[in-house]
Amino acid sequence: MIGLTSITGLGELGIIQIMERSFGVNDRTVVGFGDDVSAVRLPSGRIAVLKTDMFVGSTDLPPGMTMRQAASKAVVANVSDLAAKGVSPTAGLVALGLPRSLTRRDVQEIANGLSAAAKSYDFPLIGGDTNESNDLTISIALFAVADKKSLILRKGAKVDDVVAVTGEFGSTSAGLKSVLNFGIPRRQMPKSLYDALYHPRAQLELGLRLAASRVVTSSIDSSDGLAWSLHQLSESSKLGILIDDIPISKAARDFAKQHRLQSKDLALYGGEEYELVLTIPPEKFSRAYRAAKGNLTRIGLVTNKFRGVRMKVNGAIVPVKKKGWEHFRS
Amino acid sequence: MIGLTSITGLGELGIIQIMERSFGVNDRTVVGFGDDVSAVRLPSGRIAVLKTDMFVGSTDLPPGMTMRQAASKAVVANVSDLAAKGVSPTAGLVALGLPRSLTRRDVQEIANGLSAAAKSYDFPLIGGDTNESNDLTISIALFAVADKKSLILRKGAKVDDVVAVTGEFGSTSAGLKSVLNFGIPRRQMPKSLYDALYHPRAQLELGLRLAASRVVTSSIDSSDGLAWSLHQLSESSKLGILIDDIPISKAARDFAKQHRLQSKDLALYGGEEYELVLTIPPEKFSRAYRAAKGNLTRIGLVTNKFRGVRMKVNGAIVPVKKKGWEHFRS
Repeated sequence: MIGLTSITGLGELGIIQIMERSFGVNDRTVVGFGDDVSAVRLPSGRIAVLKTDMFVGSTDLPPGMTMRQAASKAVVANVSDLAAKGVSPTAGLVALGLPRSLTRRDVQEIANGLSAAAKSYDFPLIGGDTNESNDLTISIALFAVADKKSLILRKGAKVDDVVAVTGEFGSTSAGLKSVLNFGIPRRQMPKSLYDALYHPRAQLELGLRLAASRVVTSSIDSSDGLAWSLHQLSESSKLGILIDDIPISKAARDFAKQHRLQSKDLALYGGEEYELVLTIPPEKFSRAYRAAKGNLTRIGLVTNKFRGVRMKVNGAIVPVKKKGWEHFRS
Repeated sequence: MIGLTSITGLGELGIIQIMERSFGVNDRTVVGFGDDVSAVRLPSGRIAVLKTDMFVGSTDLPPGMTMRQAASKAVVANVSDLAAKGVSPTAGLVALGLPRSLTRRDVQEIANGLSAAAKSYDFPLIGGDTNESNDLTISIALFAVADKKSLILRKGAKVDDVVAVTGEFGSTSAGLKSVLNFGIPRRQMPKSLYDALYHPRAQLELGLRLAASRVVTSSIDSSDGLAWSLHQLSESSKLGILIDDIPISKAARDFAKQHRLQSKDLALYGGEEYELVLTIPPEKFSRAYRAAKGNLTRIGLVTNKFRGVRMKVNGAIVPVKKKGWEHFRS
């Protein structure tokens, strides 16, 4: 009785697979499902890059997040995927689903959050749609123009490439756990955890600088969790990834120690953390490092000795689980 | 205490105005808020046309509509706006918010509905996003390329222009009333009412043919109701519209007679009916009529003798109310 299976068992990937199989392909399509953005050929020979990501209150809104922060995060999630591809947004649209219980001030705060976020990434929001909904819904669609050959995809990693990341990991997960599991009021959280959870930023400038350096062979953002992103890069290029070490924020390490958690778990299996995960040929890493003005950390390398993602832990090599921030599986 | 006003009193337009004021403008923007689509300049000199429209289960799903029909309608609502501008979609994205109660078969039916609708308008769905939500949400974003001068806007009507429509009106409203107010099972509805309500189609081919005739001065679709659309055309061009008569479907007239309703009210104040409402210089109407292969009815004219929309009824001229299908006001 396949038809009666609840979507809870399907998972987000299962649903996307159903969509992908049903939609088929088209000869104008340059990038379809399976990467962070989609793209079609333009008559001019360049490509139109398209992205949509929907923020839903019941699943994406941590306790204590304001309407303004929610709206900003909805923009960030979209911009982050463009950042990972090295593409700057040209314009955006926003479709809103608003519960009746919202006030005029809530709507103004949503508008302010959308506006400030879009301005900070230097693109205009030029249209949209408004609806009533039982669940706060902020669906953003971004449009950009790029050259096909400069678009960095999830696939493209080569054996011996360096695996590198921007920023540090674990703060978002620590922030979320401190609210959800330990009931710590948002005002009592360390500022870096608060900012990571309630006011994340996309690494657009870094993504554009790294793309301009033309040494990145594959890239993804870490929004579904670092472990998940590494698995995606590994699968897309049909190669293995061996991780040495991960930059974990001091706040996440402190939080882990305090609550007897593994800081590596916070860093690997979190999510909603908008850093970039990239592969770079070893001889070109220094060029990428300069392009990123030093905000780039080597965490491992690409190998053909195995598939999947593994990590050196106390001298042993252990598998990194393919788990992350996926909806519909709880 | 403006901040505590519920959005129920704001209305959809009030919310869009808050967004528009907050977002500001940008010199790349060719068409912003206030028309059926948005557009930005491309480096090539042409324009990128962008559209998003969100389908929400709790407000847009008539009783008895299947998941496949809902998905198709979500596509139709977006395509219809492009049709009114004379633009053919190049590609689309879909962001889904799915309640946990849906089954795998429901998801497959949504995929089938999206896929079939997109194929029927000859564009690919090339990406998207999937989320859990408390309210079924299908947010479509369309992308197209056009020449700026060939884009037909809401404004542009001239004094003495003919006001014309494609198709006939009233069936959707009659269908909805027959389900909502009279509890008539969907299988007992006349086929034309059933199709109008559950399987609407966008007039893309007609819109493209009319645009290619290059005689249309302004245009909008009738998705928010014919009266509403006429008021939008009137306001956008700061002129009045005088209506003689409206083509009302036989099924809507029969339904009105049977239930002692005014068929004109069904035709004027319905909504979710995806016909085109256009203005055309009188000397060029015959050319438009040929382009539309006869599916074009003259319903009135543009005048500078008054503002707003009026209608000849039994020799008198009466105002057409500015009311239609607007969310958040019930």
